[in-house]
Amino acid sequence: MNPENTSDKLEGIIVPMVTPLLSNGELDRKGTERLIRHLTHGGVHGIFILGTTGEASSLKPAIKKELIEITCKETQGQHLILVGITHTALDVSLKIAKTAKENGADAVVAAPPYYFSLDQEDLFKYYIKLADLSPLPLFLYNFPVMTKNTLEPETVHKLSQHPNIIGIKDSSGNGVYFQKLLALKKVKPEFSVLIGPEEMLAQSVLSGCDGGVSGGANIFPNLYVRLFEAAKNRDFEMISKIQPLILEISKNIYGCSPKTSSYLCGVKESLYYLGICEPHIAPPLQSVNAQAKETIIQNLEKIIFKIKTI
Amino acid sequence: MNPENTSDKLEGIIVPMVTPLLSNGELDRKGTERLIRHLTHGGVHGIFILGTTGEASSLKPAIKKELIEITCKETQGQHLILVGITHTALDVSLKIAKTAKENGADAVVAAPPYYFSLDQEDLFKYYIKLADLSPLPLFLYNFPVMTKNTLEPETVHKLSQHPNIIGIKDSSGNGVYFQKLLALKKVKPEFSVLIGPEEMLAQSVLSGCDGGVSGGANIFPNLYVRLFEAAKNRDFEMISKIQPLILEISKNIYGCSPKTSSYLCGVKESLYYLGICEPHIAPPLQSVNAQAKETIIQNLEKIIFKIKTI
Amino acid sequence: MNPENTSDKLEGIIVPMVTPLLSNGELDRKGTERLIRHLTHGGVHGIFILGTTGEASSLKPAIKKELIEITCKETQGQHLILVGITHTALDVSLKIAKTAKENGADAVVAAPPYYFSLDQEDLFKYYIKLADLSPLPLFLYNFPVMTKNTLEPETVHKLSQHPNIIGIKDSSGNGVYFQKLLALKKVKPEFSVLIGPEEMLAQSVLSGCDGGVSGGANIFPNLYVRLFEAAKNRDFEMISKIQPLILEISKNIYGCSPKTSSYLCGVKESLYYLGICEPHIAPPLQSVNAQAKETIIQNLEKIIFKIKTI
Amino acid sequence: MNPENTSDKLEGIIVPMVTPLLSNGELDRKGTERLIRHLTHGGVHGIFILGTTGEASSLKPAIKKELIEITCKETQGQHLILVGITHTALDVSLKIAKTAKENGADAVVAAPPYYFSLDQEDLFKYYIKLADLSPLPLFLYNFPVMTKNTLEPETVHKLSQHPNIIGIKDSSGNGVYFQKLLALKKVKPEFSVLIGPEEMLAQSVLSGCDGGVSGGANIFPNLYVRLFEAAKNRDFEMISKIQPLILEISKNIYGCSPKTSSYLCGVKESLYYLGICEPHIAPPLQSVNAQAKETIIQNLEKIIFKIKTI
Repeated sequence: MNPENTSDKLEGIIVPMVTPLLSNGELDRKGTERLIRHLTHGGVHGIFILGTTGEASSLKPAIKKELIEITCKETQGQHLILVGITHTALDVSLKIAKTAKENGADAVVAAPPYYFSLDQEDLFKYYIKLADLSPLPLFLYNFPVMTKNTLEPETVHKLSQHPNIIGIKDSSGNGVYFQKLLALKKVKPEFSVLIGPEEMLAQSVLSGCDGGVSGGANIFPNLYVRLFEAAKNRDFEMISKIQPLILEISKNIYGCSPKTSSYLCGVKESLYYLGICEPHIAPPLQSVNAQAKETIIQNLEKIIFKIKTI
Repeated sequence: MNPENTSDKLEGIIVPMVTPLLSNGELDRKGTERLIRHLTHGGVHGIFILGTTGEASSLKPAIKKELIEITCKETQGQHLILVGITHTALDVSLKIAKTAKENGADAVVAAPPYYFSLDQEDLFKYYIKLADLSPLPLFLYNFPVMTKNTLEPETVHKLSQHPNIIGIKDSSGNGVYFQKLLALKKVKPEFSVLIGPEEMLAQSVLSGCDGGVSGGANIFPNLYVRLFEAAKNRDFEMISKIQPLILEISKNIYGCSPKTSSYLCGVKESLYYLGICEPHIAPPLQSVNAQAKETIIQNLEKIIFKIKTI
Repeated sequence: MNPENTSDKLEGIIVPMVTPLLSNGELDRKGTERLIRHLTHGGVHGIFILGTTGEASSLKPAIKKELIEITCKETQGQHLILVGITHTALDVSLKIAKTAKENGADAVVAAPPYYFSLDQEDLFKYYIKLADLSPLPLFLYNFPVMTKNTLEPETVHKLSQHPNIIGIKDSSGNGVYFQKLLALKKVKPEFSVLIGPEEMLAQSVLSGCDGGVSGGANIFPNLYVRLFEAAKNRDFEMISKIQPLILEISKNIYGCSPKTSSYLCGVKESLYYLGICEPHIAPPLQSVNAQAKETIIQNLEKIIFKIKTI
Repeated sequence: MNPENTSDKLEGIIVPMVTPLLSNGELDRKGTERLIRHLTHGGVHGIFILGTTGEASSLKPAIKKELIEITCKETQGQHLILVGITHTALDVSLKIAKTAKENGADAVVAAPPYYFSLDQEDLFKYYIKLADLSPLPLFLYNFPVMTKNTLEPETVHKLSQHPNIIGIKDSSGNGVYFQKLLALKKVKPEFSVLIGPEEMLAQSVLSGCDGGVSGGANIFPNLYVRLFEAAKNRDFEMISKIQPLILEISKNIYGCSPKTSSYLCGVKESLYYLGICEPHIAPPLQSVNAQAKETIIQNLEKIIFKIKTI
């Protein structure tokens, strides 16, 4: 990927891919291959591996390497591959970036280091160093619920002037913040701004953002692609048909348990039910209970039926 | 106001009116009258007094009563009047509601009590009791940064079935939350959903909300009315002209100081500069410094100039 | 009370008295009188009415006035009376202070205003103004979980130089913060520093603080007096006998429900069981359920038995 | 170290050793050796490497390995060595534990994984798995400001029954929480409870804890050893001489800048001034500015002088 023409490429639905795992904690290689084909078949514009949905923080280095290799090999250049390199240690992030580069990925994505609380000066200098050293274009990733550290709009604005920083994914859910990010596009239109929470996808694309990193696209890749296109084309009728389903997926697939793992189990159990990959998750997260899993599947069936009627 | 036909009325720009104060802490009666005429002239759809922008929590009961009287008298039924009754003690809230009713206001607005942390059951029972006893229709108000307590979408859904609860203003800034609120409108279209942060006004109206409670409408009432109408009419070209000004007001009028009072002083200093009312604020907030005040005015002049060019 | 000799007086166990309420929300006058006699009989050094435990934020002005009158009349100068004046509006706080003065109370207590977030400059100026205008000596009250605003040690240090500010109650539970407060006593020994959380009472008195504002002293006034004296006399053997009971009260009386009201219901249900006053609490808090109430009483009986064996 | 007799050993001052770094980010080996000799000479009871003060989260695996090797070699069994293994991925933690075991360390220390929010069930299962698989005894580490996840006292109580879990270090600063931890010692006296914040060291030892993990012991090892012994011997006079110095170190060495790195730079700049090791810190933290460094040294000199007078 050439940073100069990223504005053509980094838009649309970028799936934050789950990491299929076997019960012994190792990578479910067959499941991973099936999942990638499922996503490609659904028409997504890119795949983002080793993000929060990809449980990157819970995986050992060897699995990260293996996943990068398989994903790059399996997609064969059919769509973009972004690789999460978020870590508390700069050197560890750079090592993953190097592996991503060697395997042909297109860009890397980094949320702020998440152990210490950092001020905007710390964050700015950290990202400049990371961007200077990264062998691939860098995507910023704002997710303060996880990292405690917010990339303020002013900092993003300054960072956007670095030639190797090409965009930002915002998972804060903060609508005011997101409007301030979108203002950057007036100055630098090729800087890609993507929305994390899929409930906000349609409204954000209507407001001028470039696309979404939608976890539900693991299950229903084409549904999110259609929503993105509807919003891009200002097709309010189609939006009003799809948006309720997006909220239903959020409520009835992700929200079946009070546990933190509820969202992740919602996605993985759905994929397991669809015969795509194993449902296991890595510690420290623990699965939702059997009843929640059952509810997920019941709700999934209803949603599958509704999707067919659109 | 008849709750049955609120869907006709509670939409558009509802101004969260500042409370003009003299330097001795008493109400600036002349300023209040001028401000109301300024808002009416700007074509706003309603006025919300004694909210956060109205510094309700900092005012003594006598000033609250005086403000209700003047506002109701001055508007003469030209637009809706909503009166904030947020307080930690139920009886105090009801007393203000009674005054509002006696003076002819249309509805009352209550954020959750804000001393104790409350769970959803506490909040539900509290609001049911408040709605049962309130002599005027009740508007919910979600503002967790101030109150610590969030009205979860499920709780709002349940509360929306009470005949005396007619809508909600959300100032959380949470885009996911707001989409979940909007889903309530599929079930009960006449339940009014208003957005607080004005940076989100256009996108929220595009998504189906009924309007905004926009602080900046104190200064530029017609600008916000025009943005509301543009969004309602899906006039993307007009939105793209006005939205940058909204963000500029947010950044350069409200954001001139790191102090909490920065937003409030931004509004009040602007109104003072425009000859409408006195700029004083009530303790415990302290004014921004002289330099910040000067910057506000410089930025205000630029924005006034830009507005003329739209 | 003469501010010049407060160091003689403001030490020991100051009970944050609950406000006995009837089922109709009015003051349980008989219960209040019995409670005050119960506390006096237990040998406490002072009574603090209208604090957090006193549900001040939930009470209407008339009840506050009534409670001040009864308490001042009933105690007849046998111990100190402190009156909470915490409110978001300065004028309202001062009005309560005036009532306290008129009825013969000894001091007033004010936590920071709790609607807006305030910086240290805001807090400093607010307290200076309050101290200037208060007709009674002022006690600071730090309780950031409730008020969101922390009185930093440097601010307390500066405020301690005001002749009408005589001490601080810290309910933060922060052990580092409390050590920094105690350092003030090296400079101004007569500045009274009291600890809120009773689990920290013994260790804090060993560290040099002047006493505690212990909610459990509503139920067992003498137990807390004995713990205070043991700590003051560095009687480690006695401390090691009482401290486990303090923790048992905390866990098994206050901790019987996940609701916010759990602590308050623990105290009020115990007092009800002991025949002292009615157990009702004011909205917005809702009582714990019947099962939790039963558990409270079962645990109370065990604790009463154990206290007898000390 | 034999878990059966840890009660003899895991008490006193355990220094959370800084990781001396060269300007190129590599380990300052000479400085590390000098620092260990400095600590040993000061009479500390143990060294805890790769904790928060050790910047573990910012270091690449190779430096961690190198530091474990040097520390174990240099101390030659003169005191305990604890090795931090905190990480978001279980396998990575276990790999460090294995290295620690191979080099002869005595125990490992693990704070909760710090990316996802975890409930108590997640935390319990995580620690049981970690304790089952760890080749060395495991110390729990509570530090919610960093990890977002609190190990509730009930969870610690349950975990304390695992034969390979030998104690806890609490850096929450929460005095109520700490008293609840100390209650565990009534049931299992050999379970070691250590306090993190050094401002609370004396009061905590007076309350029955086993010692402290005091960052200032990097600079002044013997001062903290003396304070520990004074508290253990209930020598209130000596405590009252040393405690003000502890607070002065906290305020004037750690608090010279608003940056997060202020504490760490305070320690490292002091060690640099004393000729012990290089002062560099690892990204993402950025050093305090030159003026703050100067102030640190000026304040350090005053404190050195005062220590001599005790």
